[in-house]
Amino acid sequence: MDKLKEKILKEGIVYPGNIIKVDGFLNHQIDVELLNEIGKAFYDRFKDTKIDKILTIEASGIAIAVISAQYFKVPVVFAKKSESKLTLDQQWSTSIHSYTKDKTSRVQVSKSYLRENESILIIDDFLANGEAAFGLMDLITQAKAHIAGIGIVIEKGFQEGGKRLRAENIHLESLAIIESMDEKGIIFR
Amino acid sequence: MDKLKEKILKEGIVYPGNIIKVDGFLNHQIDVELLNEIGKAFYDRFKDTKIDKILTIEASGIAIAVISAQYFKVPVVFAKKSESKLTLDQQWSTSIHSYTKDKTSRVQVSKSYLRENESILIIDDFLANGEAAFGLMDLITQAKAHIAGIGIVIEKGFQEGGKRLRAENIHLESLAIIESMDEKGIIFR
Repeated sequence: MDKLKEKILKEGIVYPGNIIKVDGFLNHQIDVELLNEIGKAFYDRFKDTKIDKILTIEASGIAIAVISAQYFKVPVVFAKKSESKLTLDQQWSTSIHSYTKDKTSRVQVSKSYLRENESILIIDDFLANGEAAFGLMDLITQAKAHIAGIGIVIEKGFQEGGKRLRAENIHLESLAIIESMDEKGIIFR
Repeated sequence: MDKLKEKILKEGIVYPGNIIKVDGFLNHQIDVELLNEIGKAFYDRFKDTKIDKILTIEASGIAIAVISAQYFKVPVVFAKKSESKLTLDQQWSTSIHSYTKDKTSRVQVSKSYLRENESILIIDDFLANGEAAFGLMDLITQAKAHIAGIGIVIEKGFQEGGKRLRAENIHLESLAIIESMDEKGIIFR
């Protein structure tokens, strides 16, 4: 997606430790016009797939998921990181490790909003090692729902997540894949 | 907003301690069609006010803010609850107390995304005692920007937030104001 790649080149800031910040348009300030282009691009790539619901994870995934959902005309569910008042038998729950934050968190979704046989599209901002994606897939599997595919805004192609998901024949669509990056520049695949 | 009130009556669940859960369409699963009606309603109520940007707070405010922003054609900034890598002189920061969670948290916005003289509309899901609203107003004031108004989806009219904000002549628009609620029912103002 050319407009997204241009924006990443213009505003993305690369930090040591494989970190790229896109706070100016995606993760802190949100460019809603660009987000609409992103939503349309996901719809184009998944329009021939049955999608009942979009699943994402708070907080950064929410904006992308709801704007995209307008094109699919389906509801969004976001997995919660905060402790919920639900009892264990009322929710699907899994652990997700963040290498960036060096922290493992429990995330959960109410059983009311992720149901057997639903066809679920996962949408998220970043794909690095794939920990969040595999965690969300685990929630969908626990619910006996189907993984319709995964839409990612920015894939770090030099980390393992994309390779792991493609090896499992998951329909993965990343709108921008970064092949390599350092303080001098960003190269897309 | 009648459609919203109907949805609250149909799906809202009242718990002891002045808590109402609307997880089925706003705070966990998101009804994007209803959210569009909410966004349009905010636009109707603020369309004669100069708005440069919408400010909200993660996580529940994000979906409402981005859908609304499409009508205003402005960017969204969300205040972050998580610790950021920014140094103190790079961010505006304030404390917000949650009575529901009985917890005070620091929230912050990068100085890059909240600037002098900008006209800022605050959007959030709930207004109870007004702690989040006053916290966001504090961030705007620190940035020497203007508070254009506050748009709230559900105001708990029996708590003090609305009264406090109206006493300060803030342009507050709440799409549904709950006058009273208990396990037996919900009454709107």
